[in-house]
Amino acid sequence: MAIRGDGALVGTVAAEVATATATHGGSFTRLESGSGVFDADLVLTIAEDDADPQAPSSLAAAPHAASVDHTISGDHAISGRGNASTARNGVVATDGVVDGRDTTGEEDDESFRVSREDGAVVVEAACDRGLLYGFFHVVRLGEAAFSGPDLVERHAPATALRMLDHWDNVAVHEVMGQVERGYSGGSIFYDHGRVRTDLSRVEAYARLLASTGVNRVAINNVNVHAREARLLTDDLPHVARIAAAFRPWGIRVHLSVSFASPITLGGLGTSDPLDPAVARWWREAADRVWAEIPDFGGFVVKADSEGQPGPFAYGRDHADGANMLAEAVAPHGGLVHWRAFVYDHRQDWRDRSTDRARAAHDHFAPLDGRFAENVIVQVKYGPMDFQVREPVSPVIAAMPDTRVALELQVTQEYTGQQKHAVYLGRQWSEVLTFDFAGPDGDRAALPPTSVAGIVARSGGIVAVSNVGDDEFWTGHPLAQANLYAYGRLAWNPAADPTALLDEWIALTFPGAPADVVHTLHEVLDESWETYERYTSPLGVGFMVRPGHHYGPDVDGYEYTPWGTYHFADRDGIGVDRTVATGTGYAGLYPQPWASVYESLETCPDELLLFFHHVPYTHVLHSGKTVIQHIYDTHFDGVERVERFAAAWDGVAAALSDDGGHTGPGHAPRPGDTAHAGADTAGADDGRAGPGRTTPAGAGSGARLAARVSERLAEQLRSAIEWRDQVNTYFYRKSGIPDEQGRTIF
Amino acid sequence: MAIRGDGALVGTVAAEVATATATHGGSFTRLESGSGVFDADLVLTIAEDDADPQAPSSLAAAPHAASVDHTISGDHAISGRGNASTARNGVVATDGVVDGRDTTGEEDDESFRVSREDGAVVVEAACDRGLLYGFFHVVRLGEAAFSGPDLVERHAPATALRMLDHWDNVAVHEVMGQVERGYSGGSIFYDHGRVRTDLSRVEAYARLLASTGVNRVAINNVNVHAREARLLTDDLPHVARIAAAFRPWGIRVHLSVSFASPITLGGLGTSDPLDPAVARWWREAADRVWAEIPDFGGFVVKADSEGQPGPFAYGRDHADGANMLAEAVAPHGGLVHWRAFVYDHRQDWRDRSTDRARAAHDHFAPLDGRFAENVIVQVKYGPMDFQVREPVSPVIAAMPDTRVALELQVTQEYTGQQKHAVYLGRQWSEVLTFDFAGPDGDRAALPPTSVAGIVARSGGIVAVSNVGDDEFWTGHPLAQANLYAYGRLAWNPAADPTALLDEWIALTFPGAPADVVHTLHEVLDESWETYERYTSPLGVGFMVRPGHHYGPDVDGYEYTPWGTYHFADRDGIGVDRTVATGTGYAGLYPQPWASVYESLETCPDELLLFFHHVPYTHVLHSGKTVIQHIYDTHFDGVERVERFAAAWDGVAAALSDDGGHTGPGHAPRPGDTAHAGADTAGADDGRAGPGRTTPAGAGSGARLAARVSERLAEQLRSAIEWRDQVNTYFYRKSGIPDEQGRTIF
Repeated sequence: MAIRGDGALVGTVAAEVATATATHGGSFTRLESGSGVFDADLVLTIAEDDADPQAPSSLAAAPHAASVDHTISGDHAISGRGNASTARNGVVATDGVVDGRDTTGEEDDESFRVSREDGAVVVEAACDRGLLYGFFHVVRLGEAAFSGPDLVERHAPATALRMLDHWDNVAVHEVMGQVERGYSGGSIFYDHGRVRTDLSRVEAYARLLASTGVNRVAINNVNVHAREARLLTDDLPHVARIAAAFRPWGIRVHLSVSFASPITLGGLGTSDPLDPAVARWWREAADRVWAEIPDFGGFVVKADSEGQPGPFAYGRDHADGANMLAEAVAPHGGLVHWRAFVYDHRQDWRDRSTDRARAAHDHFAPLDGRFAENVIVQVKYGPMDFQVREPVSPVIAAMPDTRVALELQVTQEYTGQQKHAVYLGRQWSEVLTFDFAGPDGDRAALPPTSVAGIVARSGGIVAVSNVGDDEFWTGHPLAQANLYAYGRLAWNPAADPTALLDEWIALTFPGAPADVVHTLHEVLDESWETYERYTSPLGVGFMVRPGHHYGPDVDGYEYTPWGTYHFADRDGIGVDRTVATGTGYAGLYPQPWASVYESLETCPDELLLFFHHVPYTHVLHSGKTVIQHIYDTHFDGVERVERFAAAWDGVAAALSDDGGHTGPGHAPRPGDTAHAGADTAGADDGRAGPGRTTPAGAGSGARLAARVSERLAEQLRSAIEWRDQVNTYFYRKSGIPDEQGRTIF
Repeated sequence: MAIRGDGALVGTVAAEVATATATHGGSFTRLESGSGVFDADLVLTIAEDDADPQAPSSLAAAPHAASVDHTISGDHAISGRGNASTARNGVVATDGVVDGRDTTGEEDDESFRVSREDGAVVVEAACDRGLLYGFFHVVRLGEAAFSGPDLVERHAPATALRMLDHWDNVAVHEVMGQVERGYSGGSIFYDHGRVRTDLSRVEAYARLLASTGVNRVAINNVNVHAREARLLTDDLPHVARIAAAFRPWGIRVHLSVSFASPITLGGLGTSDPLDPAVARWWREAADRVWAEIPDFGGFVVKADSEGQPGPFAYGRDHADGANMLAEAVAPHGGLVHWRAFVYDHRQDWRDRSTDRARAAHDHFAPLDGRFAENVIVQVKYGPMDFQVREPVSPVIAAMPDTRVALELQVTQEYTGQQKHAVYLGRQWSEVLTFDFAGPDGDRAALPPTSVAGIVARSGGIVAVSNVGDDEFWTGHPLAQANLYAYGRLAWNPAADPTALLDEWIALTFPGAPADVVHTLHEVLDESWETYERYTSPLGVGFMVRPGHHYGPDVDGYEYTPWGTYHFADRDGIGVDRTVATGTGYAGLYPQPWASVYESLETCPDELLLFFHHVPYTHVLHSGKTVIQHIYDTHFDGVERVERFAAAWDGVAAALSDDGGHTGPGHAPRPGDTAHAGADTAGADDGRAGPGRTTPAGAGSGARLAARVSERLAEQLRSAIEWRDQVNTYFYRKSGIPDEQGRTIF
């Protein structure tokens, strides 16, 4: 192997390759920049400045094309720059190209070209970041990278901003714990109220994220408490240490900040965004941050939301607030991620005219065009709050003159909290491929009117991380698949989520027997739909225990100020959000969706109760009544989990055997005692890679198998609880018996 | 004034009197023991040993009599020792006499005799504790003690054990806070994870309790966490300091202990009560405690309950567990309070055959006769958990060969959490006067078959305290009335609770204008019934928010493991606890109650849903249907609170005026910054007495008035929330409209 080029991340790649060859054998040569191309099975090289810009080997003019590989077909959002053409030895493939005002400069070019000729592979990138992603691309393919016909492919991400938000607290919050909505133990960044001294776990995490394509990380909770606010000031040297751990992996660090910081940290009497002293305070704060961390990413802000401070207190709007911050960070090239999750969390449940689903649209759509160039409005995928099923947020399509980011939730707050095996790739794919222009398009194609098409342009994709200091990173070992799929979908939103699942399985359990692979696929592939079946029905959402959000409580939020109601009575259930007779929310969508959702005839079954209040005897498109659908899905959901658990029992023993299929064993890095399968990159590098589904050491496979077994047992218990509570609740209310006479309490 | 006699508490009384005379004028003489009776307006004296035992002035032969005073009429439980007779100048009155195996020795005699002749009063007691209570008796009467016809009265408490349990944690519990179910700020005993250095607040509290008659205090939470367990060992010197603060006021200190202490503190491998090493560990622990605190009271134990450790883990029963501890403390005269609050808190809500209401009876009744002499089985007043309305626990009557204590809850866990003004004296009086022999007796008479008659005999009365480090002691200033009434009812269970309320008002707001007094009475007198009207109906209980137990959530506990269900469906509501078709709980009562509760015809309306599942259209004895009763009581309950709030608004200004009616002002003791009206003793002593309804200092009356106004506003908000949620819930379920067409959502 040979590596050629300059740039910090080239060193990262070189170190990876050096370690791999030291472990597995083979030779490795690091070439000077400007050297001739080396004759090796794998060459990783930065494109030379003097290369012929028209030559197919030069990235500067690499042609763009519709994809031909299974993960990257026909994304319209990425077709703006060039025309498809054939390359010298095969095809040219493109994952995506950012097309918009945030087009990155060449120094931030993340694309790479892969060519294979007679089994020898050359990865060429304009910049070191592209080389890193190219390296991981080859690692992901493994042996397959070196076999097959000659080809030339170019790969580039669909969007420049692929971000993970951590809701980590520095100090343990007395109610929310150390990681708000975290189900994977404590924070990898903080311990005992301080930034950890030993950041080796963060280094491993950075490598893991880079292998999936993530390139931005916000390291603290959007609910910024007193201790966490000081990350911006007193703790800057420690934030710089975290940034240094991410930097070799092409990942920039962001901070969540409190809008009240000028008061709480600066001692000012106000945080009014139009107050010059406030603006000055933020400028100086930004100056200090960038002085310490030159490649700092920017600020994430949750303002005027669920009790967080914001511009409303001063009679200002969100554009006023965001733009003031944007001005402070602009000289440094910084970004402001401003969350659109704004609603009245002190709503009166008696008031049926107020609709939380409308809130973000009502607050933000009128502000379109008023946000500064470096403000990104960050919108949750649905209008409510990360439910198992929601319609796509209409805000995404409502702000064409604003940089809009999509916010997903990898951490399974409302989807089983990493106690339930729920693979969310399919949900996210549905969201990303949703086309505001109408339901009849090709889902694999991503037109500019699709969610991915809109956000890839300039705002990017953000998600809440599911990682903690757990032995398996994610509490439930199989929840690693979500972290993996998130990064891969952010790179290529058109990717097939089931293929990504199989990719994760193959990388994480290499050499596993076919029955193990089959079982992993079976447990996870339709797990999202399964979870939906045994929880809240037909898009109505919630029905969870208030506060922690785990487990059923049908009326848990029904009479609360949170705006999350189902309005079930003895006759029917659902929220009338039609224009004709309801809250008018359906009318916030462009056509044809406004009409599709407005009409009982065309509204999709899975969203029926989100848009309509219907009698229990209403007949769905499926031909079943609503009440019978509730009973049937809940019985079926539990049966599916029973099958998952039984299937797992059948293969757990095979996984408990550490030998054979779990790849090369070796000691993990110092301090990295829990390098688990989510570390799916570096399959061939001989370090703790996808060959390692378990922490190193004897019995690690057994621990993973046992952990999954324990979680599946809890999932089954919980699913039964959901089934029985939901069925009993609706039977007690409707009085309508199950057609099949099954047990309802 | 003159004081004669020896004994530590005589010094306490002397100090009180000295302070009073120094402030208000008058002379005070402390006489040697053996001196002749002094000629003074008030003489407080210990009875001389050489006094003629037959003379009416000698306590040793003081005649016992049925009471003639308004607080102490005809308690059968206290009539066992002597016969009524007239004394030289008037009547002989007796509050109560302990009649049972715990009859205290003369050194613990708490009785006192009061005689008045020509306006001069002599208080004579066999022991210093009696003298202290006699002193407070005179203080309580104020000027009235010195006027009226000559008389002789003897007073003695109905029971020797009048105890308050504090659910205080040393360290702040992350969920339960510092005081579990505490609504009055932090603990007066602990701060920052340690026993407070400054115990002046505890000293003030001790005086306050002594004035009401309380003589035992357990100082830590029955849920004994790791930090609190060490009170028994490492912290003994600090517990001794607390005991020293209580000692001058005749109050002995108890500790709650963890049954697992031999493991967690002693390093043993077991806490099996039949293991000799375990028994030895407890003996040695007890020896250490009593070596440090010779008058230590004993241990309080919550075992095998809600997750606390206990003997079940070793296949032993509660008698095994309690008797082992009893043996350890017996050499020191110590007691073991063993709580009967044992039930399955992991019940399956689907299982209608299991009934939490049965649990204490099922666990404990079979053990009657097996408990050691110094074990007291402590039984909550109802079979569930301190609800606003429950039937009296049948366990109280089911263990004739066991010392049974009644447990009440002064802290308002389920009754408004000291945000709602709820005077509980009436509830406790109903419980204490409940006669297991039947409903037709004279409620003012307390036969041996009454709750008071049973528990006064030997087990005594216990309650959970409502005090914290709040400025007003109890969060809601008016909640002080509960602390006062509790102590007074424990002394004399036959007392009229409304008279006690008026007594508290007169002592706490001396000289207040008539409209203030009237309003205080109006707000509090029927406040318990008012609270009942706007919360869970007809004895069914709960319907509170899980966890913190504040505010409505009709289904909050309906599908939980806690055993607290209402089983409402579209047709009806209630728990069938009959013998004929239900859980059989009704049959646990002696006749006639078993039949009264079993029958729909005779079951009292207020307990209907506790014993029966009925249709919403069932007609109550009141003539209303169940559903209309629910609507009517909930509308009416809110209207009552509206009247309370309006009435308070009318008098708050008068209270805000510090002058005039709030009694003599002076500086409180050092450190006692919040000596509030609950300090109802010492009216005439010139210290922070009942003349002080508010903390000392300018504006304190205004702060009290404002605090009550703020609480009433919250009570009204909360009552409206209860009304609307309960009414809406049952309207949605039943579909039956309100006859009066009022607004239901």
